[in-house]
Amino acid sequence: MKSTKIYRGTIVYAPQLGALECLEHAYLVAQNGVIAGVFQELPGKYQDAALEDFGDCLLIPSFTDLHLHAPQYAMMGMGFDLPLLEWLNTYTFKEEARFADAGFARTVYEALATELVRRGTTRVCMFSSLHREGTLILMDALERAGITGFVGKVNMDRNSPDCLRETCEESLAQTRRWLDECAGRYAHIRPILTPRFTPSCSDALMEGLGRLAEEYELPVQSHLSENDAEIEWVRTLHPDCEQYWEIYAKFGLWKRGTIMAHCVHSDVRERAAMRSAGVWVAHSPDSNTNLYSGVAPVRKMLNEGLSVALASDVAGGAKLSMLHAAAEAIRASKLRYYYSGKRPDEAYLTVPEAFYLATSAGQQYFGAGPGFCVGDSLHAIVLDDSALPPSRPLAPAERLERLIYADDSRTIRAVISEGRRLV
Amino acid sequence: MKSTKIYRGTIVYAPQLGALECLEHAYLVAQNGVIAGVFQELPGKYQDAALEDFGDCLLIPSFTDLHLHAPQYAMMGMGFDLPLLEWLNTYTFKEEARFADAGFARTVYEALATELVRRGTTRVCMFSSLHREGTLILMDALERAGITGFVGKVNMDRNSPDCLRETCEESLAQTRRWLDECAGRYAHIRPILTPRFTPSCSDALMEGLGRLAEEYELPVQSHLSENDAEIEWVRTLHPDCEQYWEIYAKFGLWKRGTIMAHCVHSDVRERAAMRSAGVWVAHSPDSNTNLYSGVAPVRKMLNEGLSVALASDVAGGAKLSMLHAAAEAIRASKLRYYYSGKRPDEAYLTVPEAFYLATSAGQQYFGAGPGFCVGDSLHAIVLDDSALPPSRPLAPAERLERLIYADDSRTIRAVISEGRRLV
Repeated sequence: MKSTKIYRGTIVYAPQLGALECLEHAYLVAQNGVIAGVFQELPGKYQDAALEDFGDCLLIPSFTDLHLHAPQYAMMGMGFDLPLLEWLNTYTFKEEARFADAGFARTVYEALATELVRRGTTRVCMFSSLHREGTLILMDALERAGITGFVGKVNMDRNSPDCLRETCEESLAQTRRWLDECAGRYAHIRPILTPRFTPSCSDALMEGLGRLAEEYELPVQSHLSENDAEIEWVRTLHPDCEQYWEIYAKFGLWKRGTIMAHCVHSDVRERAAMRSAGVWVAHSPDSNTNLYSGVAPVRKMLNEGLSVALASDVAGGAKLSMLHAAAEAIRASKLRYYYSGKRPDEAYLTVPEAFYLATSAGQQYFGAGPGFCVGDSLHAIVLDDSALPPSRPLAPAERLERLIYADDSRTIRAVISEGRRLV
Repeated sequence: MKSTKIYRGTIVYAPQLGALECLEHAYLVAQNGVIAGVFQELPGKYQDAALEDFGDCLLIPSFTDLHLHAPQYAMMGMGFDLPLLEWLNTYTFKEEARFADAGFARTVYEALATELVRRGTTRVCMFSSLHREGTLILMDALERAGITGFVGKVNMDRNSPDCLRETCEESLAQTRRWLDECAGRYAHIRPILTPRFTPSCSDALMEGLGRLAEEYELPVQSHLSENDAEIEWVRTLHPDCEQYWEIYAKFGLWKRGTIMAHCVHSDVRERAAMRSAGVWVAHSPDSNTNLYSGVAPVRKMLNEGLSVALASDVAGGAKLSMLHAAAEAIRASKLRYYYSGKRPDEAYLTVPEAFYLATSAGQQYFGAGPGFCVGDSLHAIVLDDSALPPSRPLAPAERLERLIYADDSRTIRAVISEGRRLV
């Protein structure tokens, strides 16, 4: 027998880029955790089902975060007076090395999973560290917290300190062992292959990972064209490749569903390669600003039809909150627009667009439709803006804007993931 | 008899731009609300005084906010898909017109005063609306909440809707009446003359305000060179003046202690006029980004020796939090640096510098020294970072950086203003 649950509130979602669908005091019906419909008037057949009324609150899709580094969670908001490569060497690699300690990993990852839920993020694509055991601890913590997503044991066999480097053989063997240990262990967490970035991976390692991707039919995530110094370094490491992305392509890692974080400096040719391969962009504006890497050409990517979704990139990003990520995406796009001389093809992101990138866009990476589509697992949060400053009666779109800019997780009153109530 | 209070914690302050003074588990002594000293070891003569131990928390100066619009508090985070002049006409002027209603003013201003304290801001320079009664209600609310600062009844007699425009005569008469009503009414709140900005004030009004400034020996606050379209408009309104600032100068409003918000497009000549007159810059980076006005040349201003302090500019800024303002100041400066081609004379703001601008810089507007100076009234907050993600033992400077980027008012555990404990 089907379990039916009805949620009532002011339902807001982004059916497509730039559009908002707003239904005041409407009904969302879920059956066995799957969306059966969104209704302004509740159909008669649901009249007897259990109803939870959220009153004046907004009911929106929960957030997706397409790129973040779990072992950098405990160093959020630190070291930003340094640029990317110095930041990695001074702060990040040392921090990640600590995840050799399973007890430390457990403490940090449980806190991370708890905070993700509290911030309304229920679907993620995440980097772990290179540690196999730590990665399983992370996956366990996410699964237990009710989060859905992809987690990757990081691969890195060069250009990092001894405490955070594998040999190529170790890296591949540990990855294979990790994949075997994952098999059948999780309902909602899946493995994703994760070469850290080109400078961290020898050709032999990249080649081995390409073979694993094929053998296990695994998706891939990595970094691309984040920062000028990094791009220049990649050029000297791979003089045979004209552009950064070609290195991933050469080894079979550039394919449908591959996620590339950043793409700040991806030109028209690199972007065309993304579109034709079906590679996703994890747009990480807060991180790109904090490490002054630049601002990704997100308007061009969207105009060109690329698949783009928003990411916190913790700890290049300073916060887990996707409300913050959305506001920073808008802010960064406005300064890119300003510095372009306000060119129309560099138009800034509007609030409905940033909201789309933080919800509907990422949902599609997980196979769902945009917004609340019938047949999709229900992922939703309830936002309570009654404590925000007193004002005139506001339209739902104005309330959404105010909540995004307020970026206050105390406004998140309920969190539902895969149909299950977590908060 | 002197009342002595001792606060113990990890004391951090910015004695000058770019420097941080950090004393772990140290003592701050206040006598009758005035700072008697900061000590690593408590001098013997204070051994018997009442001590409050904040344990591992950071004890820092409270924040100063040198520019914000009280009647825009209830519209924080709204309308940012529009540029400045459209935003003023579509959202702001309509919202401000509502402050003709004393009951509405009381509700909003009491909420504002409460939130300012909760966010750790104890000294402000603030615009009210043009309403005399509403302005007194605002000043009453701030005084009652324990906040120190300057509040201005706004003057505007042209280029705004009928519901938010005075005649020149009304504007001057109401201002005079307001000044007389203020006299002797407040211990910590003082009036400041507030022509909204050049396009809102006729020459006759500006001239009258210049006379009032002299007669009452009042400081002045207004807006300067925020946005390209505004600057162009000012040029057509005042073809006799070569630059924006000269209009204020012409009417006796450009003088020591005048605060000009924004100055995004102030060139070297306008900046030199600020420095030589002793005019202050209220740097409002969040607002300038949200309304894509640009990024002020704050590094150049600092190098040239201008007086610059940070401001939220609510509601061009989306938040009251000066932690947020500091983080956004850094972000905006990093993108200005990036788009300058990383020129050294456009170097981004570091964390200690942004902290200086949010505390020590503004304190000097109120006649205090930077940081915690002996003889100054004690304005301080206590920040508790124990709920931030678990990490290795951190240096005080790292903890401060993490707290700024976390921008979570729940970390504010105590607030002291003019020596009085408010939270």
